[in-house]
Amino acid sequence: MSYTPPVSEIRHLLSTVVGFDQVSATARFAEAGDEMVDAILSEAGRMAADVLAPLNRVGDTHPTRLENGKVRMPPGFIEGYGAIAQGGWVGMAADPEYGGMGLPLTLMTAVNEFIGSACLSMNLIPLMSQGQIEALEHHASDELKALYLPKLISGEWAGTMNLTEPQAGSDVGALRSKAEPLGDGTYAITGQKIYISGGDHDLTENICHLVLARLPDGVEGTKGISLFMVPKLIPDAGGTLGVANTLKVVSLEHKLGQAGCPTAVMQYDGAKGWLVGEPHKGMAAMFTMMNNARLGVAMQGVSVAEAATQHALAYALDRKQGQTPKGATAIFDHADVRRMVAGMKADTAAARAIAFECAVSIDMATATGEAAWNARAALLTPIAKAYCTNVGIAVADTGIQVHGGMGYIEETGAAQYLRDVRVAAIYEGTNGIQAMDLVGRKLSDGGDAAFALMDEINAMDHPALRAAVTELRHVTDWLLEQPLNERFAGAVHYLAAFARIIGSWTHLKGARAGGKHAKLAQIYVSRALPEAMAELGKVSLGATDLYALSAEDLAT
Amino acid sequence: MSYTPPVSEIRHLLSTVVGFDQVSATARFAEAGDEMVDAILSEAGRMAADVLAPLNRVGDTHPTRLENGKVRMPPGFIEGYGAIAQGGWVGMAADPEYGGMGLPLTLMTAVNEFIGSACLSMNLIPLMSQGQIEALEHHASDELKALYLPKLISGEWAGTMNLTEPQAGSDVGALRSKAEPLGDGTYAITGQKIYISGGDHDLTENICHLVLARLPDGVEGTKGISLFMVPKLIPDAGGTLGVANTLKVVSLEHKLGQAGCPTAVMQYDGAKGWLVGEPHKGMAAMFTMMNNARLGVAMQGVSVAEAATQHALAYALDRKQGQTPKGATAIFDHADVRRMVAGMKADTAAARAIAFECAVSIDMATATGEAAWNARAALLTPIAKAYCTNVGIAVADTGIQVHGGMGYIEETGAAQYLRDVRVAAIYEGTNGIQAMDLVGRKLSDGGDAAFALMDEINAMDHPALRAAVTELRHVTDWLLEQPLNERFAGAVHYLAAFARIIGSWTHLKGARAGGKHAKLAQIYVSRALPEAMAELGKVSLGATDLYALSAEDLAT
Repeated sequence: MSYTPPVSEIRHLLSTVVGFDQVSATARFAEAGDEMVDAILSEAGRMAADVLAPLNRVGDTHPTRLENGKVRMPPGFIEGYGAIAQGGWVGMAADPEYGGMGLPLTLMTAVNEFIGSACLSMNLIPLMSQGQIEALEHHASDELKALYLPKLISGEWAGTMNLTEPQAGSDVGALRSKAEPLGDGTYAITGQKIYISGGDHDLTENICHLVLARLPDGVEGTKGISLFMVPKLIPDAGGTLGVANTLKVVSLEHKLGQAGCPTAVMQYDGAKGWLVGEPHKGMAAMFTMMNNARLGVAMQGVSVAEAATQHALAYALDRKQGQTPKGATAIFDHADVRRMVAGMKADTAAARAIAFECAVSIDMATATGEAAWNARAALLTPIAKAYCTNVGIAVADTGIQVHGGMGYIEETGAAQYLRDVRVAAIYEGTNGIQAMDLVGRKLSDGGDAAFALMDEINAMDHPALRAAVTELRHVTDWLLEQPLNERFAGAVHYLAAFARIIGSWTHLKGARAGGKHAKLAQIYVSRALPEAMAELGKVSLGATDLYALSAEDLAT
Repeated sequence: MSYTPPVSEIRHLLSTVVGFDQVSATARFAEAGDEMVDAILSEAGRMAADVLAPLNRVGDTHPTRLENGKVRMPPGFIEGYGAIAQGGWVGMAADPEYGGMGLPLTLMTAVNEFIGSACLSMNLIPLMSQGQIEALEHHASDELKALYLPKLISGEWAGTMNLTEPQAGSDVGALRSKAEPLGDGTYAITGQKIYISGGDHDLTENICHLVLARLPDGVEGTKGISLFMVPKLIPDAGGTLGVANTLKVVSLEHKLGQAGCPTAVMQYDGAKGWLVGEPHKGMAAMFTMMNNARLGVAMQGVSVAEAATQHALAYALDRKQGQTPKGATAIFDHADVRRMVAGMKADTAAARAIAFECAVSIDMATATGEAAWNARAALLTPIAKAYCTNVGIAVADTGIQVHGGMGYIEETGAAQYLRDVRVAAIYEGTNGIQAMDLVGRKLSDGGDAAFALMDEINAMDHPALRAAVTELRHVTDWLLEQPLNERFAGAVHYLAAFARIIGSWTHLKGARAGGKHAKLAQIYVSRALPEAMAELGKVSLGATDLYALSAEDLAT
């Protein structure tokens, strides 16, 4: 499918909405000036459009296969991944000491958007490597770093994250995988892991699994979990690959979408592993990877929203049907089709802006070490993850509707967007978990970070936005007085409202540039703020009514 | 997948919510007393659960195939359809003179819900026959009726509707198929039709295509279109099947869902046809079939919503994960999961109630001939079609979310519900077309039918509902003053709001029975009314902002 990278829109976002100039003004990211930004956006955009976009349908129609224990990727994926690796895009934010470009996460986020829009099934493997790189940078020993980082950063090796087990999904602490010390500083890892994206493939010469497992003296729950590097092929100290580790792919899942991305059930049978970080501190290390991945998954929502919008607009301009008020016959000029397409575009822009606000906060936290930026990033991560993926799903769904009957026919590609992106609301913490994180952990500062953001939003002189912020404050105050489970009952609504208010704020910042930005802001704000008010009204419904229902009341 | 027909819920709906006693009090439907209702619900429910439900996954994993020009249905579908036909369920509402049971459409609607819940891919073929039966009853000559109705009613033959052509979708008037008089009272039909559900299959010995085509003297647009009966095999006057007609299946579509239901591209090459109704009045005849089918498609939304809710509840009660506030570990006791499952149940009940209000109105119109019932039915048809199918999609989507990672794995079946039902928002008039019908044609009485319903709703003493009705009145008044395209810009929002208000009213009527009905009403009303207010706020945003955007503004 044809795809145009939204380069000028991202430039607008960086300059007018999210204040990327703050990032390039830091010593850490001084290289990320306008010229660098332009070069990256145009080069990565071209790669995505030219090399990856043609693979999108191929991945859907030629699913990954498990042959003699090895996973075969769809035709062309080896070359596609090669272009990502050779462009340096996997390790663009990584430490230059190990071969990375040391660029801001914000720019990597833009590049990831392009990759995901062009071919979502190709997105997760580099994304997992990026998360693993960050986790190793923060938590691994110098030896592990020296051995693994250069290969991961260059894309020669790929990374995975292994958390989930059949009985341990959202409740990671219930995992049963074991790590036995072998006496030589290494460990024997045994257990089964499920939903392992990129658990095996033929894109790289080695695959590095970060596996959560419990040491013999590990207590129950998340506090007894440690993190291990378990490579598919065991490298010597110089990085030369040796014998195969005792791990295997048991099966590949048959999924609703992302058929070109292998989702594996992995079996570790005393596989050799190396401890990453401290014993029993595996969750902290994995959270580094998960937070990175959450923003990456947020961008998957944006990616698909962008691609589906382009696709639907092209169809709406091409398809002739009926007389429109403008006399023309393209369905684009029917009011309801315009409503759909304009809404898709406006929602996509809001989602992108929220994700980029989060990325800039992370970059500023990295560059300055300031607690306020860390708190902002922590607050925005669950909002970005849940809102952006919900927008991706809703926009893809609307894209089907714009296509009418053709939307239900697979060859059109509209349905693939929905199938591919649907999982983004589930993996890396379901969107329900994100909302619980927001009203729980992220308000555990007494709401300081949330109120600071509201103050900033309120500085904008816009009556309807201010009214919404006032209501958001009231509801936040109410939440802070509630026991946790009352908060959880309305968590999804709170996140939905907060995101729409931030989205409106970003649109209004962008509207200062006038033209289409102002028009799209009007489309977004006039719809999102009433929705936010309705969502806020639902937050304080609380848990009582929900627990008044027995299972029998809900049974048929 | 296991399925429990919601017999007691439908009994509650009939007795407490939609006033089915009015229907059984008429002379026309006097037979439809409590005993008959109970017998029908329990017998049809058992057939759906025992015979059809086991076919649901089979249909998905063994799609229909085109072999040597003939369509082969999935394994077991011949037996499944046989059970529907032999039960008399195809023709249960049809004229007893031709072998039907003459029962209320309301009861057929309940039976159709069961069939669709058990196996949606099995639903459309009898549904199309039912629509064709009604169209023939109203418009065909006595000869055609005598020849076709008994076979269609018994289910020995099946019916299809052929409207769409590649260039003529929502704009049916653009069709190009031709009908040439052959001089013997029959016609030669030539043209290509697409999206023909059940265009061919091996479930019945004959297939009766109702085809829209233009006579030589037919003007352009919908006023020059006539309707023809074009049988696959040409019967003699006694119904004995003779030679094959010159029509064929060109291909089957590869669809997002309903893989067990054949969607054909049909080619008519001078096929022999018989005029149904008056020349050039084909759209009126087809509308009889389409209105019937619209309610049938509305029920597909309810069907899938019900099945997905049962499926998600079972998973939520079975799946252990984490500690809940109740100390138990089934995810059902997490507040956010309860929110999802209770919402699914409450939305399903509201959608079902709206569809049944529509069905009762149609039955009352049939039985009494009163214009007010006809107007009520006409008003409720687009609301039921759009709202119920949107609920089906949203509930199926939530069902995926309840399943977490398992929801994305096809074997679970949660994703199939979404794939199967997604088309229901598109076919039989997209939901956008339904909304335009509501604010256009259905308000062309100056809003009389709409205001009459609002008066009835307002008789319920419920402050929040009354406030919503007051706002609905204001917005309706505003719409009536607008040119059509301004109405169209907010049509989807108006329908969404109106449906939630009717849904709240039906829930509150049901709540009089107390118990679970009162609890579910609380869940629904406390969420749906704020949503309705937000939707109403968006109706009057109008078209100006939408048309201020150029295609370039929306391009990337």
